[in-house]
Amino acid sequence: MPDVPTSYTPPDTGHIAEDIAAGLLAIGAVKLSPEAPFTWASGWKAPIYCDNRLTLSYPALRSRITAAFCIAALELAEQPDIICGVATGGLPQAAMVAHHMGLPMNYVRPKPKGHGLQNQVEGLIEPGAKIVVIEDLVSTGGSSLKAVAALREAGMEVISLMAVFTYGFVASAQAFEDARLPFHALSNFEQLERVALKEGLISEAHRQALAAWRTSPATWGQ
Amino acid sequence: MPDVPTSYTPPDTGHIAEDIAAGLLAIGAVKLSPEAPFTWASGWKAPIYCDNRLTLSYPALRSRITAAFCIAALELAEQPDIICGVATGGLPQAAMVAHHMGLPMNYVRPKPKGHGLQNQVEGLIEPGAKIVVIEDLVSTGGSSLKAVAALREAGMEVISLMAVFTYGFVASAQAFEDARLPFHALSNFEQLERVALKEGLISEAHRQALAAWRTSPATWGQ
Repeated sequence: MPDVPTSYTPPDTGHIAEDIAAGLLAIGAVKLSPEAPFTWASGWKAPIYCDNRLTLSYPALRSRITAAFCIAALELAEQPDIICGVATGGLPQAAMVAHHMGLPMNYVRPKPKGHGLQNQVEGLIEPGAKIVVIEDLVSTGGSSLKAVAALREAGMEVISLMAVFTYGFVASAQAFEDARLPFHALSNFEQLERVALKEGLISEAHRQALAAWRTSPATWGQ
Repeated sequence: MPDVPTSYTPPDTGHIAEDIAAGLLAIGAVKLSPEAPFTWASGWKAPIYCDNRLTLSYPALRSRITAAFCIAALELAEQPDIICGVATGGLPQAAMVAHHMGLPMNYVRPKPKGHGLQNQVEGLIEPGAKIVVIEDLVSTGGSSLKAVAALREAGMEVISLMAVFTYGFVASAQAFEDARLPFHALSNFEQLERVALKEGLISEAHRQALAAWRTSPATWGQ
């Protein structure tokens, strides 16, 4: 990168993670309710529910998320040839990141559609291409890993999986490590909890409930 | 629009439609094969197959499509409050159009997902909001109409349905009219056929096969 002056300081990603956590809380994309747990689509009970798709409705926050993805991609040691979104939640941000980086985009479904003509990977498949995969949210990491497996089967090299937010479960970190998949989340549960505590959105008792849930998310509240 | 000089000439949409048709043919997104028909996901046989998702892999064409959507939206008598993509094919362009117009985006599934937590409309629902809906492709118009019905049920006003390409079937035009749904396609079958003939991609015999198919697309080739 010859046009970057030597005084260039890498962005403070801690600050970005805090900024995005504050944004998610401000628009109501993340709801914290330790006393009346949510039931996730997986059947898990949880004191937290994230709807990152809501960020699409707020252009300023949406653009900050796009910028944060671009920063993360530009800082990779290897640069991507293609930006790939995971359907459906990852597609809007993948499109905007691809646009800002002037790169091709394609997308991948966690599983193939029922009928025959639908591809699991949509857009051009280029064996050997270096791919950054964009997700909206990581919980167990299962659907991200299925999407990455489809890209790898098609001969593409996934150099990074990126998500707006991760719950930071040990299981997902382990699964990504097992799959030798570099992972970067723009924000995460720890930052969110810190901002929520600072803003008085949760009490110390709530914090303890959240800690118990994070230790055993699959069985908590059952 | 006080900042538009009086000498402003509306864009020649015929030229845009031809430009996009040529782009779709150039990248192989539209395949014409009257002699060895394709079988569509619907079961219909057809001498043509469009994969507009392939345009996402070509940044220059992708940006021209975004620009064409923005032109079409800016020329509407009423301006939209929200840009809505139809999942999954319409999401990337909806995101880029929303970004360029500085507008909120949301998205809609043609039908609700199986499990309970999934909304048919994702992102903020604002009753009374004026919506431009973006699709990649219109054939019968059925999935677009389901998506529009979900938005209307949620209290939003769909001021225009826009698509990259339409086969231009009489049935879809009639269905949109019956639903009082203004429709604008950036390109269409007629333009595509004209460019394909000009570039020698189809013969006069092929043109006749295409004409027969267009007259009765649901039964052709069976």
